Amino acid sequence: MEGPADAPKSPYYAVIFTSLRTAADSPGYEKMAHRMVELASMQPGFLGVENARGDDGVGITVSYWASLEAIGSWREHFEHRMAQELGREKWYQCYRLRICRLEAEIAFERGK
Amino acid sequence: MEGPADAPKSPYYAVIFTSLRTAADSPGYEKMAHRMVELASMQPGFLGVENARGDDGVGITVSYWASLEAIGSWREHFEHRMAQELGREKWYQCYRLRICRLEAEIAFERGK
Repeated sequence: MEGPADAPKSPYYAVIFTSLRTAADSPGYEKMAHRMVELASMQPGFLGVENARGDDGVGITVSYWASLEAIGSWREHFEHRMAQELGREKWYQCYRLRICRLEAEIAFERGK
Repeated sequence: MEGPADAPKSPYYAVIFTSLRTAADSPGYEKMAHRMVELASMQPGFLGVENARGDDGVGITVSYWASLEAIGSWREHFEHRMAQELGREKWYQCYRLRICRLEAEIAFERGK
């Protein structure tokens, strides 16, 4: 089922955003998070996003991008910068953002 | 607060494991997941792990490693291979594993 790790068809990048919320129910957070996914998906070079947040308040969002330039442009997007400010002011106790280049990839799907 | 992205002090790697569970309460899953974190953290080159799973069954685990060799050795670890088999047989509807090299990193902590 699982062979050696395949190199990605074309090189791409992942942004791993790991965060701890200040509180689970901060007003406006969900709406902002939803808007940021919507807005990111409209940016040039956006390839996809995966998101999970557990009951302990730890969340991981991984977004995928065609180039470092696309990641840079998205980070500088006006509405995104406003959200980043609010995140530091209100929503996040701490976060870490890691920009990575994909080296290899393996997929598994049941029944395939 | 947030300067330009810093290059990591020494290069390291992330393994992004995104999965969808077959069911939320498969017997043995939590115990296995806990054991795998314990075992991984004992491997040479292990740097850390972050984990989140939401109510929709989507989970993201990111582990960090000093080298591709360390990642390769952990993938081949006997007990880990048994867990991988069980994952494909029972626990996961689908998963994707991505191996990445860190390019840049930004940290934020409230009050610092």
